[in-house]
Amino acid sequence: MKPPYYAVIFSSKRKAGVLEYDSVAERMKELTMQQPGFLGISSARSADGNGITVCYWDSMEAIKNWKNNNEHLYAQQMGKNEWYESYSVRIAKVEQEYSMEAL
Amino acid sequence: MKPPYYAVIFSSKRKAGVLEYDSVAERMKELTMQQPGFLGISSARSADGNGITVCYWDSMEAIKNWKNNNEHLYAQQMGKNEWYESYSVRIAKVEQEYSMEAL
Repeated sequence: MKPPYYAVIFSSKRKAGVLEYDSVAERMKELTMQQPGFLGISSARSADGNGITVCYWDSMEAIKNWKNNNEHLYAQQMGKNEWYESYSVRIAKVEQEYSMEAL
Repeated sequence: MKPPYYAVIFSSKRKAGVLEYDSVAERMKELTMQQPGFLGISSARSADGNGITVCYWDSMEAIKNWKNNNEHLYAQQMGKNEWYESYSVRIAKVEQEYSMEAL
């Protein structure tokens, strides 16, 4: 992707033994990818429960629209009340990018 | 942290069975935290080898200095040649941040 574009950096610490998390997380990922302005998504979660998801968007407008999506708002509430010990969200403008694909 | 500040988003896919990775990664994390302008670091790696590390800095100058650190340059070469199937680095300016610490 050619900068500039936008990144939402979502860091979270999951509680142990939470129900229904995986299916909702999978659904949110699918929905994210269907939104206007979506450019990409990358996720990792360590065995200790610490996770980072970064998704990329072509505008701040696209981020705002996805933030206010009804199904997403419900998941945000569940995350806050049930799933996460803590989390943070950062919105950033990507200014440079370089990458390597091994041959 | 109060925006604006800078984020380096490092996404990587590790090769299986690479030697000495963990000790060098740990050393790089320690060194990162000692650099001028360092604000924070957050990492996660899934069992499948996909990892994301985001580190935060107070200026582009700080990022450039760390990128050119000798020991770090060596690790970058090792990563490129030995450890990673693929990786990407993005430099972004954090414009908004919000977080929740559960009580």
